[in-house]
Amino acid sequence: MGSARVFLFCSILAIFLNSVLGANKTRHFKWEVEYMHFAPDCVEGVVMGINGQFPGPTIRARAGDAIHVELTNKLPTEGVVIHWHGIRQIGTPWADGTASISQCAINPGETFVYRFQVDKAGTYFYHGHYGMQRSAGLYGSLIVEVGEREKEPFQYDGEFNLLLSDWWHKSSHEQEVDLSSNPMRWIGEPQTLLINGRGQYNCSLATHFSNSSGSQCKLRGSEQCAPKILHVLPNKTYRLRIASSTALASLNLAIGNHKMVVVEADGNYLEPFSVSNMDIYSGESYSVLFTTNQEPSKNYWISISVRGREPKTPQALTILNYIPTSASKLPNLPPPVAPLWDDYGSSRSFSSKILALKGSPKPPKKHDRRIILLNTQNLIDGYTKWAINNVSLVLPATPYLGSIRYGLNNAFDHKRPPENFRPDYDVSKPAPNQNSTYGSGVYMLNFNTTVDVILQNANALKANVSEIHPWHLHGHDFWVLGYGEGRFTEKDEMKFNMKNPPLRNTAVIFPYGWTALRFVADNPGVWAFHCHIEPHLHMGMGVVFAEGVHHVKKIPNEALGCGLTGKMLMNNVHN
Amino acid sequence: MGSARVFLFCSILAIFLNSVLGANKTRHFKWEVEYMHFAPDCVEGVVMGINGQFPGPTIRARAGDAIHVELTNKLPTEGVVIHWHGIRQIGTPWADGTASISQCAINPGETFVYRFQVDKAGTYFYHGHYGMQRSAGLYGSLIVEVGEREKEPFQYDGEFNLLLSDWWHKSSHEQEVDLSSNPMRWIGEPQTLLINGRGQYNCSLATHFSNSSGSQCKLRGSEQCAPKILHVLPNKTYRLRIASSTALASLNLAIGNHKMVVVEADGNYLEPFSVSNMDIYSGESYSVLFTTNQEPSKNYWISISVRGREPKTPQALTILNYIPTSASKLPNLPPPVAPLWDDYGSSRSFSSKILALKGSPKPPKKHDRRIILLNTQNLIDGYTKWAINNVSLVLPATPYLGSIRYGLNNAFDHKRPPENFRPDYDVSKPAPNQNSTYGSGVYMLNFNTTVDVILQNANALKANVSEIHPWHLHGHDFWVLGYGEGRFTEKDEMKFNMKNPPLRNTAVIFPYGWTALRFVADNPGVWAFHCHIEPHLHMGMGVVFAEGVHHVKKIPNEALGCGLTGKMLMNNVHN
Repeated sequence: MGSARVFLFCSILAIFLNSVLGANKTRHFKWEVEYMHFAPDCVEGVVMGINGQFPGPTIRARAGDAIHVELTNKLPTEGVVIHWHGIRQIGTPWADGTASISQCAINPGETFVYRFQVDKAGTYFYHGHYGMQRSAGLYGSLIVEVGEREKEPFQYDGEFNLLLSDWWHKSSHEQEVDLSSNPMRWIGEPQTLLINGRGQYNCSLATHFSNSSGSQCKLRGSEQCAPKILHVLPNKTYRLRIASSTALASLNLAIGNHKMVVVEADGNYLEPFSVSNMDIYSGESYSVLFTTNQEPSKNYWISISVRGREPKTPQALTILNYIPTSASKLPNLPPPVAPLWDDYGSSRSFSSKILALKGSPKPPKKHDRRIILLNTQNLIDGYTKWAINNVSLVLPATPYLGSIRYGLNNAFDHKRPPENFRPDYDVSKPAPNQNSTYGSGVYMLNFNTTVDVILQNANALKANVSEIHPWHLHGHDFWVLGYGEGRFTEKDEMKFNMKNPPLRNTAVIFPYGWTALRFVADNPGVWAFHCHIEPHLHMGMGVVFAEGVHHVKKIPNEALGCGLTGKMLMNNVHN
Repeated sequence: MGSARVFLFCSILAIFLNSVLGANKTRHFKWEVEYMHFAPDCVEGVVMGINGQFPGPTIRARAGDAIHVELTNKLPTEGVVIHWHGIRQIGTPWADGTASISQCAINPGETFVYRFQVDKAGTYFYHGHYGMQRSAGLYGSLIVEVGEREKEPFQYDGEFNLLLSDWWHKSSHEQEVDLSSNPMRWIGEPQTLLINGRGQYNCSLATHFSNSSGSQCKLRGSEQCAPKILHVLPNKTYRLRIASSTALASLNLAIGNHKMVVVEADGNYLEPFSVSNMDIYSGESYSVLFTTNQEPSKNYWISISVRGREPKTPQALTILNYIPTSASKLPNLPPPVAPLWDDYGSSRSFSSKILALKGSPKPPKKHDRRIILLNTQNLIDGYTKWAINNVSLVLPATPYLGSIRYGLNNAFDHKRPPENFRPDYDVSKPAPNQNSTYGSGVYMLNFNTTVDVILQNANALKANVSEIHPWHLHGHDFWVLGYGEGRFTEKDEMKFNMKNPPLRNTAVIFPYGWTALRFVADNPGVWAFHCHIEPHLHMGMGVVFAEGVHHVKKIPNEALGCGLTGKMLMNNVHN
């Protein structure tokens, strides 16, 4: 038994013991998803809200608790699902909330009950995983505290939660049409960055520091777009939970004059390290500690800036307010300045500091299979797409979990997707042949084997362009074994960090670089692995892994009532 | 056997004989519904197109033909259905294309095959019947010619087809949110009227006649918004087929200098009558004949104007071009002027001329049941709704056809909706109590009985406001027995036209008036009866009739895979 499996076994045992001892709760939620008018950035638009809230309600639970979310779709004509980002769904792969993969979208007027266990403390979030419903505003926070008898490996006096996102004034429906057009119309940079669903488009909180002609925000605090201020006492230590649900933007967070100690990433403890600013890619979450050791008669900026793309979107700001200083007193220093958008050296340096806390599970020493995934931008019949090893993912009408479980071979491409790409492919230049094909094939992973994935970045369609892509894996954490520049070669394996690689569910590839991941395929189910930039996924940038699906016990019919599984069940022709 | 039933029997016999004799064809269509960029009125927006076309492809068939439309949903997250407006779907109630009534919406990526017979020649159209997808542009023409050995009761040398609609610059998604908000935000008048999907928003074809400062259209004819010109030869007779798929607008059509002889309405022949302009309400279709007996060196306007609501939308125009006069020569007379928007006298006068052609089927002399339906605007918990006898229709997640066929009693309200309204209700004033309730109950009609429906208009929420509502019945034609002003009383029955009332599928109620309809409940199925103004239906303005559902043979599983019927079939618990 590898250490990962021992760890998994122990986790399950802990959950079991907690259940038996009555420490674990089932937390019930009744949610209705519907569109509503909202002004997240002081400009009114339409958001996808839950129970009239945007962002959706925060779920708080303890490790080992069961979560029951009874989700009713109140949209007029659209299906909906919710993905519980970072929750591995051990034993409940049908609750992963991915349309076409783990379940059929919930039809308007219908209710689906998500039942799953939150087995591991950490900072998580949830979001829509159908079309571009995340861009429409369907997201919220999911915080799992340690079990009642457990302790975090760090201490703090108080806690705040920042859910970060980006916002466009064009509806996600229109964005979908734009992206699917020939020629493709790019959605452009977001109008506004949001902190807990709040931003300011037509004004700034810090105009007095800027040379631009923008106006100072005149907010009374009760507006939908007014920043949520963080009220702190002097000389205390606070935990800041941060998660990024952005559709596109890579972010950088800083607190004026305050250092941050990074202690958790994606629900896994880190060897603590101190920074003055930090990068956060879409799909990532962190906890940082900061101490209120600055002049207490002042307030300080908390700033969120765009990284990795030419920043056409203003910083998002809120205020760290030292009680009893008035919260309306603006900081007397300008907001923190993030590293330059294309200073990837700084990004790489930050990523290299993220290491597992001593005592964390270690990766198996050897891999059973290595899949190399080339990330390219392509053209298919004139349509701009993203492809992996030259295959652009098109999701089928029948969710894979059901079609694989029941052997419905016509539900998706039989052809297995490629394990690698041409040896003569030059990742530093646009491809001579930019064509690609659509596909819905699945990487079938042998159960309980160790899989390496090498994410290989490349030049996009235009010369001298290579973008950041944060890849997110469902159903697992993976170890990030290393990052490198240029094309990955077998020699690069020597540089893998086998000592203390961090466990994560999201990892970035830098422009023209590679990232090496390792995970154990020990969670029966079908799992999406994809770029977390929503328009990129919409344009095909993802793959599908399946493992041990024959071990999956009865999938609720509610998850299967569409496509060929729906037909199968209705015709009562069970395989 | 009543004359209507004899007629129905003969129709079915004719279809049968045609089939046996090989005269009837099956016409196959393969359609994909998707959103696309389009500029119907020269301003680019997003429309719901079919096979890349807007409006959707025209279906042409002969009476007795079978139509197979294999409809694939290519929308990212929305379900879709298509209703074949005016086709009675005898024997195929599951092909009526009404979400929540005749079938489950077709999920994204899935295909549903509509199979039905077009049993009666006439001018029809098809359109979306889910949420406000008709407003999004999901519509097209459906023309049924007489059988090969049959003859129309009139003659003509050529034919044109005008499908009329209205267009907003706000997306139908946002309109749905606006209408469902508290306080309700009314969608306002359309920006543009469209003739065959073409209109001009930012210019006019006839500016030189107007006092306004609008600019003259500079169109080369190849634009998506350029009018389709009607090219005619002098001294010929043409048939103009007209159908209105408007979301809201009541229309008036005129051809400069030309009289029109009205010969068909909703697929039923009329006693011909001549007019210089005609009203067309949403959901109605007509055929008119006109003779090109005017000065052939000139061209003439064809104009579409708004009626029944304060007209904030410019006329739609196209040109009747006398060959060989140049089509680009603008008419030298101003476009026809429609009657004043609130000249209901003129509207009533036009409606009163619509009478069945001699020899048409006559209504049964007596009714078995009379249902009186009061149309009111109401408030429910502060939300603005439309209600019928104080019940605002909310469609259930399970289509009625399946739930009634299989006796799934929890699928909708047990409570039968009311047959009448309070005797002391004053239809001329706002109600003292404007509250109402939601409901999904069904009017269960005894099979083969004769049903009268009295549609009773009333004052809306605001004093001195009563709007036009065109009511459309699925699965049947009805006889329009009469119109009256004020509250209907049993004495009004004396005024019913029992001699030659027209058969229609859509009939209007005038402000503060009533309209009396009669039909025979002889078509097994569940049938919507509703105001054809799409936002009004969205706000609850409809009822549901069910008749002879036990006679309905096997409903395709594809129509049932949602809600409780989906559950039933998947659990294999057939009643």
